[in-house]
Amino acid sequence: MTPNVSRFDRWIRTSFVEINTELETLYFAQENKAAVTFTGAALKQQLLAEGCAFIIDLLNEGNTDEGFEEGFNLLGNVGLYLAACRRHEIDEANQNIMKEASSLALQLGASLGVTPRFATSHLTTHNTAFNGRYKTFTSLEDEAIFIDYNTRGIFSYKRAADALLRIMPLGVSHPVAPDLFKAAKDALYDVIAYNKTLFKKLDTDRFFYNVRPYYKPHRVGASVYRGANAGDFAGINVIDLLLGLCRAENASYSQMLVDKFLYMMPQDQLLLRDCMRQKSMMNSFLEALPANSKSPWFQENLKAFLDVCDAHGEAAAQHHDQLVGKYISQPAVNLPEENHSNLTASGPPLPVLLAVLEKLRDQRMAAPRNDIETRYKDIQLLKAAITE
Amino acid sequence: MTPNVSRFDRWIRTSFVEINTELETLYFAQENKAAVTFTGAALKQQLLAEGCAFIIDLLNEGNTDEGFEEGFNLLGNVGLYLAACRRHEIDEANQNIMKEASSLALQLGASLGVTPRFATSHLTTHNTAFNGRYKTFTSLEDEAIFIDYNTRGIFSYKRAADALLRIMPLGVSHPVAPDLFKAAKDALYDVIAYNKTLFKKLDTDRFFYNVRPYYKPHRVGASVYRGANAGDFAGINVIDLLLGLCRAENASYSQMLVDKFLYMMPQDQLLLRDCMRQKSMMNSFLEALPANSKSPWFQENLKAFLDVCDAHGEAAAQHHDQLVGKYISQPAVNLPEENHSNLTASGPPLPVLLAVLEKLRDQRMAAPRNDIETRYKDIQLLKAAITE
Amino acid sequence: MTPNVSRFDRWIRTSFVEINTELETLYFAQENKAAVTFTGAALKQQLLAEGCAFIIDLLNEGNTDEGFEEGFNLLGNVGLYLAACRRHEIDEANQNIMKEASSLALQLGASLGVTPRFATSHLTTHNTAFNGRYKTFTSLEDEAIFIDYNTRGIFSYKRAADALLRIMPLGVSHPVAPDLFKAAKDALYDVIAYNKTLFKKLDTDRFFYNVRPYYKPHRVGASVYRGANAGDFAGINVIDLLLGLCRAENASYSQMLVDKFLYMMPQDQLLLRDCMRQKSMMNSFLEALPANSKSPWFQENLKAFLDVCDAHGEAAAQHHDQLVGKYISQPAVNLPEENHSNLTASGPPLPVLLAVLEKLRDQRMAAPRNDIETRYKDIQLLKAAITE
Amino acid sequence: MTPNVSRFDRWIRTSFVEINTELETLYFAQENKAAVTFTGAALKQQLLAEGCAFIIDLLNEGNTDEGFEEGFNLLGNVGLYLAACRRHEIDEANQNIMKEASSLALQLGASLGVTPRFATSHLTTHNTAFNGRYKTFTSLEDEAIFIDYNTRGIFSYKRAADALLRIMPLGVSHPVAPDLFKAAKDALYDVIAYNKTLFKKLDTDRFFYNVRPYYKPHRVGASVYRGANAGDFAGINVIDLLLGLCRAENASYSQMLVDKFLYMMPQDQLLLRDCMRQKSMMNSFLEALPANSKSPWFQENLKAFLDVCDAHGEAAAQHHDQLVGKYISQPAVNLPEENHSNLTASGPPLPVLLAVLEKLRDQRMAAPRNDIETRYKDIQLLKAAITE
Ligand code: HEM
Ligand code: HEM
Repeated sequence: MTPNVSRFDRWIRTSFVEINTELETLYFAQENKAAVTFTGAALKQQLLAEGCAFIIDLLNEGNTDEGFEEGFNLLGNVGLYLAACRRHEIDEANQNIMKEASSLALQLGASLGVTPRFATSHLTTHNTAFNGRYKTFTSLEDEAIFIDYNTRGIFSYKRAADALLRIMPLGVSHPVAPDLFKAAKDALYDVIAYNKTLFKKLDTDRFFYNVRPYYKPHRVGASVYRGANAGDFAGINVIDLLLGLCRAENASYSQMLVDKFLYMMPQDQLLLRDCMRQKSMMNSFLEALPANSKSPWFQENLKAFLDVCDAHGEAAAQHHDQLVGKYISQPAVNLPEENHSNLTASGPPLPVLLAVLEKLRDQRMAAPRNDIETRYKDIQLLKAAITE
Repeated sequence: MTPNVSRFDRWIRTSFVEINTELETLYFAQENKAAVTFTGAALKQQLLAEGCAFIIDLLNEGNTDEGFEEGFNLLGNVGLYLAACRRHEIDEANQNIMKEASSLALQLGASLGVTPRFATSHLTTHNTAFNGRYKTFTSLEDEAIFIDYNTRGIFSYKRAADALLRIMPLGVSHPVAPDLFKAAKDALYDVIAYNKTLFKKLDTDRFFYNVRPYYKPHRVGASVYRGANAGDFAGINVIDLLLGLCRAENASYSQMLVDKFLYMMPQDQLLLRDCMRQKSMMNSFLEALPANSKSPWFQENLKAFLDVCDAHGEAAAQHHDQLVGKYISQPAVNLPEENHSNLTASGPPLPVLLAVLEKLRDQRMAAPRNDIETRYKDIQLLKAAITE
Repeated sequence: MTPNVSRFDRWIRTSFVEINTELETLYFAQENKAAVTFTGAALKQQLLAEGCAFIIDLLNEGNTDEGFEEGFNLLGNVGLYLAACRRHEIDEANQNIMKEASSLALQLGASLGVTPRFATSHLTTHNTAFNGRYKTFTSLEDEAIFIDYNTRGIFSYKRAADALLRIMPLGVSHPVAPDLFKAAKDALYDVIAYNKTLFKKLDTDRFFYNVRPYYKPHRVGASVYRGANAGDFAGINVIDLLLGLCRAENASYSQMLVDKFLYMMPQDQLLLRDCMRQKSMMNSFLEALPANSKSPWFQENLKAFLDVCDAHGEAAAQHHDQLVGKYISQPAVNLPEENHSNLTASGPPLPVLLAVLEKLRDQRMAAPRNDIETRYKDIQLLKAAITE
Repeated sequence: MTPNVSRFDRWIRTSFVEINTELETLYFAQENKAAVTFTGAALKQQLLAEGCAFIIDLLNEGNTDEGFEEGFNLLGNVGLYLAACRRHEIDEANQNIMKEASSLALQLGASLGVTPRFATSHLTTHNTAFNGRYKTFTSLEDEAIFIDYNTRGIFSYKRAADALLRIMPLGVSHPVAPDLFKAAKDALYDVIAYNKTLFKKLDTDRFFYNVRPYYKPHRVGASVYRGANAGDFAGINVIDLLLGLCRAENASYSQMLVDKFLYMMPQDQLLLRDCMRQKSMMNSFLEALPANSKSPWFQENLKAFLDVCDAHGEAAAQHHDQLVGKYISQPAVNLPEENHSNLTASGPPLPVLLAVLEKLRDQRMAAPRNDIETRYKDIQLLKAAITE
């Protein structure tokens, strides 16, 4: 890190957190916790001004060629700053300051091959802790709970994806495939367990009013970029595609992938791309079905495969029915109409987003649906082939 | 190529060209050559229906893992089809057909890491010819002239970029640097010569009314993607950045880079990214100036460097003052108001675009400007250091 | 697969296996099971001639650009053929046939970026099964046992490496690090469990006389390439280096890495390379020790880290003391002197190899040694810092 | 650069050069200029000791993760030191010092993916100059001449390769292919011109006795690595393969490629690998010959292609008949028998090497040979198809 970069990083890890926390405390004490606009003007001014000074130094310094990790970390810091300005609704009135920060973010995003804003990985999988503390917006306990369990969930999904990817060169009939299916299944049940804890520990109001608002879409340069969400890594889609529960040729699924690519780390982009060209395991089992359904390998490996599908569906149902429900849909009901805009990370109005998420859930569960493509029938066919 | 892919490719290289050419002939024969909407309904219907049949077969077939080149070629073919539908103004009334084509384009774009539409490289640097003929929209001579000279110009720019890139590990003081500067300069004068021929050969009306309209922005899935332009390759920006005439930290320049990344081939994206972290040669010469201005290497290498800057500026001026002027700005003056929308490849209204292009020209020429950042003073300083 | 490639693959999966199995049966029935030279001449001739015909067709066909996987699979097939010829001691007398096979192997190895012979991954992690059967030299049960448990062990090591790699961007103090340490530890205990089963199931004589001989060094073109061994993947060294039990600056360790690189898949080469530039976790804990030894994170995370070190040491001890001992050292004692050459996969005489393996074991165990560098003292220091 | 790295770099650029130059002056003043063993003991001792001190500091420091360029530069410095020790014949008596340097070289080579010694690119294409001076062994004028023209020749070959590579996606019938063929031809004539100057300027004795000896094979760790030669970059083989004058399936050619891979920069390795899967242009022309020989594109493009082949052959003949002849073969005749060992960079005895180089020359010239494969007949066939 150059001295400028490291000074800014220190600020993001200290004063920035304090100012945000003080502002959240003020908002939360209000009757309408969502009324942000006129609260805490002095703190907001301080945030703006302090951050801006660092950014101007950084812009003048220019690119210092410290490698991907350093650049990505710096982008995260600028991104946290931009997101906080949006959250406190001070970005639009301060276009000139935002312009400087945007220049830096655009240049970094372009040179790294990612979206020019903070992404989920900045707060989870690539959030370096010093002496036990990683980067956050606030020092509120519920933000830490949220991040901790997002991180754990993501890592578990990645572990499941790793195991499935390793099956690809072996083929679904390989005697070691069941071991890998089991590793994937175990990892998915870890996701489920972590989600359960999150559901138990995370306070709805705190999350809804003090954490979620930092994840809104915001402008960087000429475009508005949707917010970060815990799904912005390749693993979840790798699982979808390799299992065969979702298809890259499906219009809404491929649209989602296109929208997501630059929110992932470059390595994840490559991984997901490589995955898109592979034949799904479900299709491999379906192909083998007529001739080999009685083979011992078919019975054993198919069972192990279906267990993974079940686990993936269960985690998806849990995400939608519990997490999205409890922390987004329900509290949104009570929100004053004027605060509805930008409720979601991806931008579209909540009901639209919910319908999209429901589709994904049903594809992952291979649920019977007439309006959209799911693998319901194929999964039924395969389940029927299990002989005992 | 799978049989489906190859059938579609054959169609794009034959009937597709014939239909477009017939339509262009009809439009061009009209008093208002820009009045497209109500002409040639039957031909348009044929185009739609024939193309659609291939696309449905391809969607059903799914990804067939034939490698990057094959996928990229197929994306080009879908892209040409989508662009032609836009050009003939039949896309909006045929959303369902476009939806199929978009699904295929989205899936291909995502899996290849490029924008889900045809890009410049599909028609120029990566446009395979069979028996002397490459892909085009029409068989009009002026389209071939346009493509031929775009291709030649791009390759020459790339050659200039290659030479400059090879100087980076050597440093500007290396005794072999002048040889590489000369190779870059020669390549830039080739650009200028090719542009001159283009200027002489290309018919304004034919280009303006029958070629350019295929390069408009159009929708793919949820977003509108700007049109392709001859600048969608890394080389031109590599030259800007390595010479130091433009800076990646500059807000409007980095915005342009961000907008451009996915329009370039993946290799070009990597190249440009790698370039963004390098120190510019102009800055290296400025640093050496105080202590070494009298050294023989400084005199010799600086001269060679300044020659490259001059050539780059000259080519930029020519592009703007001649090509853009003759083929876009001037004919636009005579265009009925109702046909002004989507005049440009990138979408903004013509005057806005022209101002942007003018800025770029002036940065490349290191022209004196007060409103924007150029290297005018630095270049003057360096020129003054040349002793004879 | 082109028809030529697929015909050869079919042969490798059928006749090739049958011939080898018949030959092994003959050898094993002899008093001196290691006397190979004069047994089964007709079968050997058949092996040579049948394989050679395919290879000549493939050489004439030239490179057919079917992608990495196809090329790698073909290299594996040529490699199995070359290794079988070596094992049956018919390579040296048939230089002209070997020359054809070597040409193909050299061209493939060069174009893929790997060593021009079969590598471990051809038989384990990248050995595609059709209808439950993957590639083997023979149909002997003990070969299948050996391969199955090698594969399982490798995948488990890879899983441990994945988990450790994911800690790197978080730092050792991150609250999620213990979860990842636990995932690594669990994976290492899977290695131990699989090794135990292998130890129980694998017959010593069968392995020593009928399986191991296919893993000898052999000539390809101008050089002799050492045999494949189960350690030819990045994960094991990733664990060594990230934990900090081994150091890339250590002469004999870096020599081993250099010798190993081209025996790994290209992705693994990149992974290991990336790893070599990282600071080890042991060093991070040692640095934090003076100031933070009482912090809750230090206590919790260090404990989790030390558990991983223990597991890694235990697996290494098991490998050396049980597997190498039972299946190589002990049977070698009874081997007639004239059959001692080429006993090991890497070529050096057995005692030399055993000493090298012992060093590695002791480094992984952080055992106290005066003659070589181990982390014994550092691990003791860290263990002493655990307060309860 | 860390302070240790930069101190060593400074030494390599100053004292190291002075000591080598003094030693060369002593050797050259002797009657037998090749008698190195007993001359200049004190200087040799100084070289050993000074270099060793830096290397120990660097080994203790360990990997400092400064990026590829820094690591590659450091490897070059260690490599120059090792090569100088070999040249002055002090390596074998000082195994312990060499062991330290080897450890560092092995670790760097492994982590960078290149051979653990200095390679040609360290002295040519990636030899950074400060204030006009790049790294050399000595300050002798003839070393500078040799390096300058090697560098220029290599860059020109690379330029030719670039142009040919750009033809691949277009196909040989594309109307822009002749422009690219011409760029390739021009670049090859630059090679020829630079070689001619080299031939005129370079003093035979100085080269043979004071420069060449630094390019000998030497030991690093367990293996002996052949010396660097001006051909260790991808471009030359890219030209061979794309034109079709050499074939990767040819045993001796693929052996050469295998031996060469790790002597090239990683980017060059990838480039050459990608090239090996492509169909050669010669084969494309031969395929088109029966049906299209009268097409204007065929006539024009074939002529341009054959011009490139001629230029490549001419440069190869010049290299062999003039450079190798004047600077290696002829002076070798006069060399006392006892100094014949290690005369060549690649290690084999001179006559063997000369025969290999002759084969390469004849393949590049498509010369008629009965004993080896050349494209003589195919080129004759194509030449005969030119109608005027
Ligand atoms: C009839 C010929 C040409 C015309 C009318 C023309 C016009 C334009 C226009 C209007 C744009 C802006 C596109 C937009 O953003 O909407 C543009 C961009 C660009 N054109 Fe051309 N162009 C022509 C030929 C060429 C050629 C032969 C080259 C050489 C490679 C070239 C290089 C570029 C570059 C590099 C850009 C990107 C902007 C920049 O970096 O300057 N153009 N051109
Ligand atoms: C005094 C000048 C030169 C001499 C005496 C010379 C001699 C040699 C020798 C003896 C080899 C074989 C090395 C070995 O394997 O031991 C070689 C290889 C090679 N040299 Fe030179 N060389 C000279 C300059 C150049 C230059 C300027 C180039 C242009 C880039 C060049 C290109 C090559 C290439 C490409 C090879 C690899 C073998 C091949 O592909 O032909 N050489 N040279």
